Amino acid sequence: MLFDEEMMLLAIEEAKKAEALGEVPVGAVIIDENGEIIGRGYNTRETQKRPTGHAELIAIEEAAKVKNSWRLSDCTLYVTLEPCPMCAGAIMNARLKRVVYGAFDENGGALSSVTALYEHNFGYKPLVRSRILEKECALLLTEFFKNIRKADNS
Amino acid sequence: MLFDEEMMLLAIEEAKKAEALGEVPVGAVIIDENGEIIGRGYNTRETQKRPTGHAELIAIEEAAKVKNSWRLSDCTLYVTLEPCPMCAGAIMNARLKRVVYGAFDENGGALSSVTALYEHNFGYKPLVRSRILEKECALLLTEFFKNIRKADNS
Repeated sequence: MLFDEEMMLLAIEEAKKAEALGEVPVGAVIIDENGEIIGRGYNTRETQKRPTGHAELIAIEEAAKVKNSWRLSDCTLYVTLEPCPMCAGAIMNARLKRVVYGAFDENGGALSSVTALYEHNFGYKPLVRSRILEKECALLLTEFFKNIRKADNS
Repeated sequence: MLFDEEMMLLAIEEAKKAEALGEVPVGAVIIDENGEIIGRGYNTRETQKRPTGHAELIAIEEAAKVKNSWRLSDCTLYVTLEPCPMCAGAIMNARLKRVVYGAFDENGGALSSVTALYEHNFGYKPLVRSRILEKECALLLTEFFKNIRKADNS
């Protein structure tokens, strides 16, 4: 398995932690320039009652603590779902070198689906790669919402 | 003085707390449906080494704790500077009813200057008002950067 795919598997592990709490399963990890994991996060919006409780934001805050800096240059963020505007913005604010995501978010994605934030001139533009383990990342979400509908109808 | 201007004065007070720490002076407050202040924040990116340490995000997290909910419907955020993509996204994620800002951010503003995020179909669109105490909000920033240049040249 290639490196990006291996890292995405770890992001999927984070997403499963969200799922276990009944949260929409989205997970993220951040690696530094040596390939070491320095941040992990999963969606905790409902359980923590935090509008900012997205996987990416949590991973970025952890990585900044590890680096003791707001600059995460040379770091890469892996996330199972296309980032929303808040997280896409946080990725720019942290100067992350690269973002790799799995599934597209047709309703909320800010890197290509609803808007392409990095096409605007914000003075910093991370590298982007998409569709890494796309099926696996998307399946987590479709299964989650299928189970919710089942529960609602029972 | 009108209500929005009164609230912006409180956001300016927050911005001054950032300035006192040597941080770029940006401040924010959030009021609930009764006009009570339920969140305050000022930029602490450098001192806290937090890429997410913007005034708006800090105010939103405080307000969510006060409300014990990620939904800040019927609340208004006042901020001295046009929000960046991260903060504009957090405002949507928190379902804030309204955002009022002072000065435009030509290099980083996501509500009208670099992009107009809320013109895209994210399924939720806060009301926006700009130019409230614009001169006062902008002056804080121009004076701050003028002093930095002076110190650099001395």
